[in-house]
Amino acid sequence: MMAGKDVPVSPLAPKRQPKVPAVPGVRFATAEAGIRYRGRTDVVLMLLDEGTQVAGVFTRSKCPSAPVDWCRENLAQGSGRAVVVNSGNANAFTGLKGRDSVKLTAQIAAKAAGCKPQEVFIASTGVIGEPLDATKFEGVLQDCAKRAADGPWVDAAKAIMTTDTFPKALSRKAKIDGKDVVLAGIAKGAGMIAPDMATMLSFVFTDAAIAAPVLQALLSKGVKGSFNAVTVDSDTSTSDTLMLFATGKATDRGVPEITEINDARLSGFKRALNSLLLELAHLVCKDGEGARKFVEVRVAGATSARSAKRVALSIANSPLVKTAIAGEDANWGRVVMAVGKAGEPADRDRLDISFGEIMVAQQGARAPSYDETAVSDYMRGEHIVITADLGLGRGRSTVWTCDLTKAYVEINGDYRS
Amino acid sequence: MMAGKDVPVSPLAPKRQPKVPAVPGVRFATAEAGIRYRGRTDVVLMLLDEGTQVAGVFTRSKCPSAPVDWCRENLAQGSGRAVVVNSGNANAFTGLKGRDSVKLTAQIAAKAAGCKPQEVFIASTGVIGEPLDATKFEGVLQDCAKRAADGPWVDAAKAIMTTDTFPKALSRKAKIDGKDVVLAGIAKGAGMIAPDMATMLSFVFTDAAIAAPVLQALLSKGVKGSFNAVTVDSDTSTSDTLMLFATGKATDRGVPEITEINDARLSGFKRALNSLLLELAHLVCKDGEGARKFVEVRVAGATSARSAKRVALSIANSPLVKTAIAGEDANWGRVVMAVGKAGEPADRDRLDISFGEIMVAQQGARAPSYDETAVSDYMRGEHIVITADLGLGRGRSTVWTCDLTKAYVEINGDYRS
Repeated sequence: MMAGKDVPVSPLAPKRQPKVPAVPGVRFATAEAGIRYRGRTDVVLMLLDEGTQVAGVFTRSKCPSAPVDWCRENLAQGSGRAVVVNSGNANAFTGLKGRDSVKLTAQIAAKAAGCKPQEVFIASTGVIGEPLDATKFEGVLQDCAKRAADGPWVDAAKAIMTTDTFPKALSRKAKIDGKDVVLAGIAKGAGMIAPDMATMLSFVFTDAAIAAPVLQALLSKGVKGSFNAVTVDSDTSTSDTLMLFATGKATDRGVPEITEINDARLSGFKRALNSLLLELAHLVCKDGEGARKFVEVRVAGATSARSAKRVALSIANSPLVKTAIAGEDANWGRVVMAVGKAGEPADRDRLDISFGEIMVAQQGARAPSYDETAVSDYMRGEHIVITADLGLGRGRSTVWTCDLTKAYVEINGDYRS
Repeated sequence: MMAGKDVPVSPLAPKRQPKVPAVPGVRFATAEAGIRYRGRTDVVLMLLDEGTQVAGVFTRSKCPSAPVDWCRENLAQGSGRAVVVNSGNANAFTGLKGRDSVKLTAQIAAKAAGCKPQEVFIASTGVIGEPLDATKFEGVLQDCAKRAADGPWVDAAKAIMTTDTFPKALSRKAKIDGKDVVLAGIAKGAGMIAPDMATMLSFVFTDAAIAAPVLQALLSKGVKGSFNAVTVDSDTSTSDTLMLFATGKATDRGVPEITEINDARLSGFKRALNSLLLELAHLVCKDGEGARKFVEVRVAGATSARSAKRVALSIANSPLVKTAIAGEDANWGRVVMAVGKAGEPADRDRLDISFGEIMVAQQGARAPSYDETAVSDYMRGEHIVITADLGLGRGRSTVWTCDLTKAYVEINGDYRS
């Protein structure tokens, strides 16, 4: 099944596709390699200027895909020259054939890019367990390298879509030492989105000059409040990949290279990166399969931030909470249930729950001011905020999810047909 | 919403309602207390002969309902004379009012049964967060006590239903020291079924004479492989209650009293109890909201039984696995995903996966013998067995679940309306 054919675009999609500027040092092109889909692009080759620094965060699955193994191995060198991403086949659980297929892909891409195979990073998304025939990239990647240009980013975002209903490409500007740098990123979802990441792929590029260890520290920290704080269905894929590339081309315009994580000149960049990661993660969540509502779960008053996050995820992953939201039902009893089942410190008699600004439950019972009509009106909105204050401590955490609709079952009950 | 009105009976329901015999020392009657539903019974009062021994296992939710608090407190005395169960309102998250309501229910029942309030065990199931008006039991329970008889058990099972589509009442016979004893049990589901138990209530009665500490040991052990091994949606309710009552009336027929857990004469009873608990748990699972398929997940080759159970639950709770089964799709890639995300020791290259007797994945890749047609035929059945052999050790575990269909979303998106 391919998104766009039968499935309408998510009602939560941004109304306009944002313009994403070129990132000096990054060129790319897409193609139809015929992996699985017909009549659409399914591969993107990205070329990176020499000296590009690399960071990456990957799935915590104990059964990672062959490309994830490959990327982890080559990340150690800290630099890279090319990225190949294909959709339609995840090359996961494909055994020795899968490893050979990754190796062959890297060889073909290296030849096209004029670099070593170890400088090629690879990601695959789609069906698990089907051998991926990498010979299909022969010629295709060569041709991509010839056509590579600095845009349009939306084409790269489109080539990596699976059940996504809209392409996800965003950018940010930041200043380092008073001079402009740019960040651009693409992402795809949509199911299997749960910490730690999912069938989720995202690639972010910047022309800033930042040494690989610093880049890695920024990414590892940034992922916590963004991609690792969204969940569509609590499932974690074998293929989750988030990578950050810094070409360093901004040095041509006098932007200094950053080699220390504590460099004060990084603060603006850090903010821009975190903001970009968060918006990309939100887009993935808004394109959760069948999603009609974007749900923000805020937990406060927990004994620690870690405990707060567990409770928030328990609420955000509860099928009963999610179906209630789909039904526009302010069923806060199910929120209580989800708090209770999280196994974290909680005291029924101190628990407050709000939907939006409306307090529905207070200190272990229905709020005296509870107004069903006001809450029902609120539940008809597209962005639902649920707040649970445990009243125990100062730990807080926010996670994002979407509702669970019949369309989710429809889409996922029929993925391979 | 009330089951039976719009929701058809589960296709997994037993074709015939089994006959359940009387249990000497137990009498009961049902009534319409008008808690929430119209035109159906919503309360059962059970009377237990003097000396009845009691054991119980309850939800691990940190936000338990008021009746759960009450039962836990009174379980210490080891004996009981009456049970009141109502449907329509769970009396959970109802604060001080909820506690008062339980107390009043116990007082009314105690007066009707001629016992102390502390000898009354109470369970409530239904909507959370709504105050339960216990004055509705006034007169009603008195009348139940007058009408109390030793059957039919199906009436008791019907009175406690919420979204259940069929009543669940079963029995077993066992021998203690060569003489017959009887066990009878009722249960209700259906959503929020996950270890450790859920919106699940079950009450089992026997005329055997077994001291409370022994009874408790039997129940605590028996629940592990039965009710704590089924999951409908990974949600755990505030109200889960499983209680076991032994009236001791079989001593009238010369059955000896058992006071030691290691008494060899218990072995037949133990088997019968475990078998009854397992079948009741399976019935709850087969009546999971919207269920069309009964799914058995067997995990072998794990490093420990505990690890095997975690992996099995990760598979059984995965929305992507469950929707694939609903779609009759042998999507074993999602089983790999669920194994991988469990966080337990697993090695992709040793993993074997079968659907029924058909091996689909072997040592980290698609099985060479893989036959899509045979698997597709298998997936059309009503009882699906998924086996994952991790190939690491001797730990094994089996859990049961159902598929995730559009009807689940429909039923749970509309529960309160």
